[in-house]
Amino acid sequence: MRNLLDRVNQGSISIDDAMKALAVLPYEDIGFAKIDHHRTLRRGFPEVIFGLGKTPSQIGEIARQIAKEADQVLITRASPAAFRSVRNHLPQANYSNLARVITFDRRERRSFSPGVLVISAGTADLRVAEEAALTAEIFGCEVIRIPDVGVAGIHRLLDQLPTLRQANVLIVVAGMEGALPSVVGGLVDGVVIAVPTSIGYGANFQGLSALLGMLNSCVPGIAVVNIDNGFGAGYLAANINLKLANSR
Amino acid sequence: MRNLLDRVNQGSISIDDAMKALAVLPYEDIGFAKIDHHRTLRRGFPEVIFGLGKTPSQIGEIARQIAKEADQVLITRASPAAFRSVRNHLPQANYSNLARVITFDRRERRSFSPGVLVISAGTADLRVAEEAALTAEIFGCEVIRIPDVGVAGIHRLLDQLPTLRQANVLIVVAGMEGALPSVVGGLVDGVVIAVPTSIGYGANFQGLSALLGMLNSCVPGIAVVNIDNGFGAGYLAANINLKLANSR
Amino acid sequence: MRNLLDRVNQGSISIDDAMKALAVLPYEDIGFAKIDHHRTLRRGFPEVIFGLGKTPSQIGEIARQIAKEADQVLITRASPAAFRSVRNHLPQANYSNLARVITFDRRERRSFSPGVLVISAGTADLRVAEEAALTAEIFGCEVIRIPDVGVAGIHRLLDQLPTLRQANVLIVVAGMEGALPSVVGGLVDGVVIAVPTSIGYGANFQGLSALLGMLNSCVPGIAVVNIDNGFGAGYLAANINLKLANSR
Amino acid sequence: MRNLLDRVNQGSISIDDAMKALAVLPYEDIGFAKIDHHRTLRRGFPEVIFGLGKTPSQIGEIARQIAKEADQVLITRASPAAFRSVRNHLPQANYSNLARVITFDRRERRSFSPGVLVISAGTADLRVAEEAALTAEIFGCEVIRIPDVGVAGIHRLLDQLPTLRQANVLIVVAGMEGALPSVVGGLVDGVVIAVPTSIGYGANFQGLSALLGMLNSCVPGIAVVNIDNGFGAGYLAANINLKLANSR
Amino acid sequence: MRNLLDRVNQGSISIDDAMKALAVLPYEDIGFAKIDHHRTLRRGFPEVIFGLGKTPSQIGEIARQIAKEADQVLITRASPAAFRSVRNHLPQANYSNLARVITFDRRERRSFSPGVLVISAGTADLRVAEEAALTAEIFGCEVIRIPDVGVAGIHRLLDQLPTLRQANVLIVVAGMEGALPSVVGGLVDGVVIAVPTSIGYGANFQGLSALLGMLNSCVPGIAVVNIDNGFGAGYLAANINLKLANSR
Amino acid sequence: MRNLLDRVNQGSISIDDAMKALAVLPYEDIGFAKIDHHRTLRRGFPEVIFGLGKTPSQIGEIARQIAKEADQVLITRASPAAFRSVRNHLPQANYSNLARVITFDRRERRSFSPGVLVISAGTADLRVAEEAALTAEIFGCEVIRIPDVGVAGIHRLLDQLPTLRQANVLIVVAGMEGALPSVVGGLVDGVVIAVPTSIGYGANFQGLSALLGMLNSCVPGIAVVNIDNGFGAGYLAANINLKLANSR
Amino acid sequence: MRNLLDRVNQGSISIDDAMKALAVLPYEDIGFAKIDHHRTLRRGFPEVIFGLGKTPSQIGEIARQIAKEADQVLITRASPAAFRSVRNHLPQANYSNLARVITFDRRERRSFSPGVLVISAGTADLRVAEEAALTAEIFGCEVIRIPDVGVAGIHRLLDQLPTLRQANVLIVVAGMEGALPSVVGGLVDGVVIAVPTSIGYGANFQGLSALLGMLNSCVPGIAVVNIDNGFGAGYLAANINLKLANSR
Amino acid sequence: MRNLLDRVNQGSISIDDAMKALAVLPYEDIGFAKIDHHRTLRRGFPEVIFGLGKTPSQIGEIARQIAKEADQVLITRASPAAFRSVRNHLPQANYSNLARVITFDRRERRSFSPGVLVISAGTADLRVAEEAALTAEIFGCEVIRIPDVGVAGIHRLLDQLPTLRQANVLIVVAGMEGALPSVVGGLVDGVVIAVPTSIGYGANFQGLSALLGMLNSCVPGIAVVNIDNGFGAGYLAANINLKLANSR
Repeated sequence: MRNLLDRVNQGSISIDDAMKALAVLPYEDIGFAKIDHHRTLRRGFPEVIFGLGKTPSQIGEIARQIAKEADQVLITRASPAAFRSVRNHLPQANYSNLARVITFDRRERRSFSPGVLVISAGTADLRVAEEAALTAEIFGCEVIRIPDVGVAGIHRLLDQLPTLRQANVLIVVAGMEGALPSVVGGLVDGVVIAVPTSIGYGANFQGLSALLGMLNSCVPGIAVVNIDNGFGAGYLAANINLKLANSR
Repeated sequence: MRNLLDRVNQGSISIDDAMKALAVLPYEDIGFAKIDHHRTLRRGFPEVIFGLGKTPSQIGEIARQIAKEADQVLITRASPAAFRSVRNHLPQANYSNLARVITFDRRERRSFSPGVLVISAGTADLRVAEEAALTAEIFGCEVIRIPDVGVAGIHRLLDQLPTLRQANVLIVVAGMEGALPSVVGGLVDGVVIAVPTSIGYGANFQGLSALLGMLNSCVPGIAVVNIDNGFGAGYLAANINLKLANSR
Repeated sequence: MRNLLDRVNQGSISIDDAMKALAVLPYEDIGFAKIDHHRTLRRGFPEVIFGLGKTPSQIGEIARQIAKEADQVLITRASPAAFRSVRNHLPQANYSNLARVITFDRRERRSFSPGVLVISAGTADLRVAEEAALTAEIFGCEVIRIPDVGVAGIHRLLDQLPTLRQANVLIVVAGMEGALPSVVGGLVDGVVIAVPTSIGYGANFQGLSALLGMLNSCVPGIAVVNIDNGFGAGYLAANINLKLANSR
Repeated sequence: MRNLLDRVNQGSISIDDAMKALAVLPYEDIGFAKIDHHRTLRRGFPEVIFGLGKTPSQIGEIARQIAKEADQVLITRASPAAFRSVRNHLPQANYSNLARVITFDRRERRSFSPGVLVISAGTADLRVAEEAALTAEIFGCEVIRIPDVGVAGIHRLLDQLPTLRQANVLIVVAGMEGALPSVVGGLVDGVVIAVPTSIGYGANFQGLSALLGMLNSCVPGIAVVNIDNGFGAGYLAANINLKLANSR
Repeated sequence: MRNLLDRVNQGSISIDDAMKALAVLPYEDIGFAKIDHHRTLRRGFPEVIFGLGKTPSQIGEIARQIAKEADQVLITRASPAAFRSVRNHLPQANYSNLARVITFDRRERRSFSPGVLVISAGTADLRVAEEAALTAEIFGCEVIRIPDVGVAGIHRLLDQLPTLRQANVLIVVAGMEGALPSVVGGLVDGVVIAVPTSIGYGANFQGLSALLGMLNSCVPGIAVVNIDNGFGAGYLAANINLKLANSR
Repeated sequence: MRNLLDRVNQGSISIDDAMKALAVLPYEDIGFAKIDHHRTLRRGFPEVIFGLGKTPSQIGEIARQIAKEADQVLITRASPAAFRSVRNHLPQANYSNLARVITFDRRERRSFSPGVLVISAGTADLRVAEEAALTAEIFGCEVIRIPDVGVAGIHRLLDQLPTLRQANVLIVVAGMEGALPSVVGGLVDGVVIAVPTSIGYGANFQGLSALLGMLNSCVPGIAVVNIDNGFGAGYLAANINLKLANSR
Repeated sequence: MRNLLDRVNQGSISIDDAMKALAVLPYEDIGFAKIDHHRTLRRGFPEVIFGLGKTPSQIGEIARQIAKEADQVLITRASPAAFRSVRNHLPQANYSNLARVITFDRRERRSFSPGVLVISAGTADLRVAEEAALTAEIFGCEVIRIPDVGVAGIHRLLDQLPTLRQANVLIVVAGMEGALPSVVGGLVDGVVIAVPTSIGYGANFQGLSALLGMLNSCVPGIAVVNIDNGFGAGYLAANINLKLANSR
Repeated sequence: MRNLLDRVNQGSISIDDAMKALAVLPYEDIGFAKIDHHRTLRRGFPEVIFGLGKTPSQIGEIARQIAKEADQVLITRASPAAFRSVRNHLPQANYSNLARVITFDRRERRSFSPGVLVISAGTADLRVAEEAALTAEIFGCEVIRIPDVGVAGIHRLLDQLPTLRQANVLIVVAGMEGALPSVVGGLVDGVVIAVPTSIGYGANFQGLSALLGMLNSCVPGIAVVNIDNGFGAGYLAANINLKLANSR
């Protein structure tokens, strides 16, 4: 484009022809591609790899490519085999068996922003909760985990009230009837992100009961993400929490 | 049948022929019809009229017929017009605008069995809650009503804890995410009957979200009835509560 | 808290400061934790382990922990491997291959409360029926099992009428169209708990047909639990039956 | 076509050209249109008018047209206004308020074939049951109606056993859980046609519960038609029953 | 019961006491058990074994038991292993790999009733079609099979028109859009039984598309059975066809 | 932008600054807005108004605005009241009561491109069929309408075979089981666009049965649009047909 | 409680008895009720009235009660009649015909926090968008509205890019396929809240298509609320935006 | 038929008898079978084999049979084992591991018609996209593939605008929210064919979210095919594109 403008400046191309040329120029040449770089820079994070449906060697290769230009890589829904493939290229990579998440971070990070809480209802919800927590952490948040506080034993939740109330963002992970976000949402002022899980059987319908429960919460202003989408919740929580940290 | 046995006794019919005759006799002649009378007597209650889809005059006529032989009539899903029709025949009948229920009871009842509690989440759930309460009452139970205790304000529920814990049976009525029975069920030892209501909009899908939430409750042993089925819940509660009263 | 009250009594803390301190005290310190103990004591039963999604060694370890303080353990949805793991810690534990349930009970029980009946429709429904029966038994109920009485052969059901009518609580387990609870419910005065199973194929939709059938029963007052939830039905039945036994 | 064959016979068209011409001739010219007439003649019945979505005057006009060439007309889902319009043209037409069906039959029929039974569960199912009965009747069947025999009071059904067993075809109409066809099917050898109705509320989902129940019946060989499709059931019953009558 | 009547005849029991005793007698003693035998005798067929969810050895044992008193056994949804188990007991048993059906028939049958046709749309529908055909055959029907006539090539169907029109009962098996029964039903006067199959992918939803298509057929009087329920269709077809044969 | 380029040409802005300015310029200034004009010019058609949810006066006003710059206006899902409002502004506008479509075309069109056929199954499908036909017509296509050719009477369809085969694009409109597109698609080489309608009842589920049927057609390459979306089908058909006309 | 502590201090009650008394004290007495007041004070907002299912006079009365102690009232899903009833009590109340929202605010507010953007796709989505905007406004946010930017004309969206990028929170309201949040989410760094609307027809299924689309967005971290839940989105947006404002 | 006409010509059969004979002649004898050959000739393509549910040896045998008379064979949903079986008979056959498609083409093709574009959103959608591309290619189209252009990064799509606009037909393959066809459809004048894929998890419901999204597109005239139906989209695209090529 600079070349085109030079020619306009030199008069070697008419204004009309320049306008025609500009109309068909690839858009990234005039700013769009910068958007992406912009986002990467501002967020301190490149692309995330969704591991499902990719072979271990594909994942290893993509991770290697990304790590050339980025200090951090996050790979969700990754098998142990995928991790072995990634570690060949990136020996410092870590793997969470629980969350099936690979993280790689070569930065010597100085500080984490506190304010994110991940609450989960049952032990079977821990996989999704940990995916959320690891995602928020690699994005630069300090995460407090509160596992195993179902609505059936409400006092366990009430015991944590002071901690709950200090959080900026609360990721609440629950399967079955998905009632926990409503109860939590009624107790705190922080932003509540509800993550339904597919934990359950029968009329659970692979998480539908929890999803519908959360969408229909009688507590106003609860943010819902897809079933089992711990990554999405962690990303959203980090986005909000880091904005708060940056605005201070 | 007595006639048949007389003939056997008199030898005017052979044993073989008598056995053949018995095999094709209408079953009620040998006890079945008694079952019904038996049930009516034991429960102190005749048939219930489901008002939906019947004309006011039909309802009036059916009520009149039943009241000939019974001291009590319960008509659910009844319009004001149906009530006017019933009152023509049964001037002592009462009507609940809220529950759309007609009750008629000419007995001078001596006592009601305490032990039934009806808790409802939102004001819009009151219709169903009242249908449940009136049903349990006409069956002979003393009913305590606790309205407006949604999970969003859990402390309103906790304030009622001593009352909740004294009940034998707790009917918990909730729409939207239907989380209230789980929370209540975690706090009490009484029998919890969950009634989903069609209150809500959007992904509520006419009560599906509440129904699925209740069926998937993480609290064990919750009894669920159909969406908006206050009558069924009241009937079940009365059945349990009266058994408890009678066994004392 | 005792310490706090001591200081109030000694005047070493002002009333105002004591009230502030009480307001932020963990709730279990002022009674909540007792709730749990209360329940355990009254019901004679600690926590139940839901085996699905836990590894055999996890289940073994949890069972071991619970058995330290409790005389009974119930583990549902448990694999044979889970049983082997539990048996290492608790040699007296038993396993039902049919119900996939592990039970452990070191108490020398004196008596069981009669009154619970488990009726199932097809041979394939037996798994769920047995889970319900074993649950009710470990909670202290005497359970009569009546298998294989589908609605297609109504006379097999009618033959059992006297037995059906003596039960306080009838757990009716059926897949496919789920019609059995309606038929049973029309014949008895006891409390009917309907358990839909996922048995069937095609338009059964993993138990949806049976679930909807039971929720829409034309017999009033039937309690429905989740698809395949034999445990929930057994728990509910025991809750009702033991209340009846205790009130005598 | 006759003209074409004449020309072949006369040799005024070559065999090759005749074959080409035949290949593009409209199919009805070589027998297809006869199919329709054939059907009308054999079944003694012309087209049926589905009244839903047609204006009264449209229905009146279509009925008039059909009645020119046919002795019988059947109009389903017809409003009283539609009936008034039809009666202007066909004064002998009859209307069933219950079934919303208009029938017109100018034949002096000599005989009806017995063998069709229409059983319905609740009073609200009568509309659909009557549509089925009237359809079978206008097709030439003698129809016995047995209303109000739900599964909740199984003895009412058993009382009718001899009648049930004499029928060739039993149309069983039920809403809610749709269990009646299973119970009836277990008692008789006749052909059972199950008609789910949209009667119910909540988890009935406009007849889905009854439809799924009937499709999943544990009794083999039950024929199911669409929700509220009394006409289809009557047509199917008449088809079978008349075949039986004709084969005698 | 004979004993009771003897005592009535001898006067050793009063009429009143005899009536009381009759009222509680197991129903099968006064005719119900005969119903079953009646059905077996009339239909010439005992129970059918639904193989799904039973172990090979269970199936072998049940088959052996039934074959003691019956000349014929039909086992559907049976694996090759189940067949090997059955053959140990009943060496003359046959197995259809395609339909996964075991048949055993030790009768030297003289004649089969013609009149049943099984039409299937795609090669993948053949499993269900063959289950239907084998069922109708072991019930005593002669079955004509017409495979591979989908609606996409309507002329293949039209070529078979004379054959189609001679059948009393046409079982039409189709997956995907399930349109074949409508097309067949528009061409014949015989009874059409539509069997949706789970063949397809995507928006087929395991046979839902075919099922809904058949229930909504614009051709009146089509009988629908459950998805993949070849057995039910064969049973229904045989029931109708044999009634026709017997009425001649 | 021309102004910016002028300044570049005159040297009154540096190249660097010009590039910055270009990066944030609204995109339509550099070609995007032309896209829209381009489309309008090429297709000879401006925006279409979707009438549902707009008041008559809103529709009248929008139509007036569009007609200022366009020769044609198409308004779908329009009530008679909306038409009266439009006619105040555009007296030449036309209204189809059947299709509920308002058309306005002030051009003296010279020619229509033949090649579009609209086939509909039942009389109740005519509304949607006519919406499709009118849409294709105002886009410049000549449309042949073939109503009332359901799959139940396949010969009516076969009679039209030569006409069917001459069409470039066939819009096939059907409710209930939605089988017509499959049958038509098996007979022609033209492009088949399937439009499911919400016509039907019961297990039709507001057009779901027809939609699923069409998506699962065994005939390859059928294009499906939304339920009742006659406009979309007409638009798609016109797009294909005019491309064919223009390429000649 | 103060009274209790006084008695402890005076020694007129033993420590043991005091502990027992505390265990059964209503929880609000020790802090819980403060939670609510706390929330009201912190958020500067009392309860919101959900108007659906309440009569105009009920709404008027509730509003009057709330306004006694609060400076602001928000009533959603309110009819014009409800507004007339509210205005009788609160003459300064305002009504949005579009959003069906009543607002009352007697505070002379000094400042609004900028940062909330409400983007809507079609004109029919404006109702929901306006409900969201008015909610965020009464909570103290400054709201920019960008209507009518569907994905079909992506350049209209791109034209607004600078505005989109300055927002802290973007509420994106869309019906039909619900694709707009994905496109917006790919362009901005702000928090995206997606609101599906029930706008559409056919396979839209009352907003299901938009809801599923938004839950499955390929853009990570999008917050979803219930169908048509403009209020919830506005509440969530305000919660985030005000936290950002307060942290500055 | 020729023989029949010969006899008519010779007068050895009467005109009446000839007409009768013609009426029952198999239809293919008078033209129908030609239809098929006609289609094959015109399209240059015989039958396609749907590999799912067929054994490798079956597929090999069918392919061998077809290849006797056809120059091209297309086998979709084929496993590597199926390919090995086909290669035994047809050594020149090719296999796409990605698309699981076997192609065989012994023709020395001269030319391909340009104009088909296959755009896919995510890497996981590539399987379906490649099935579409290979289908269109073997039908004689030149196909441009544009992978990995999701709506989350809209600029990647905009960069390809000139290429997008040159295509006659654009196959747009997307899972998750399925928004890509709407965005593409807003930018081009070509025919857009939308292929939803089952890629996703949770509330994706095996492709339902993408399917509903595409059916509800706000861009008019988008053609939708079944979930994962790359073949159908390729077939439809080729049908349109070749018509355009042939009309030139």
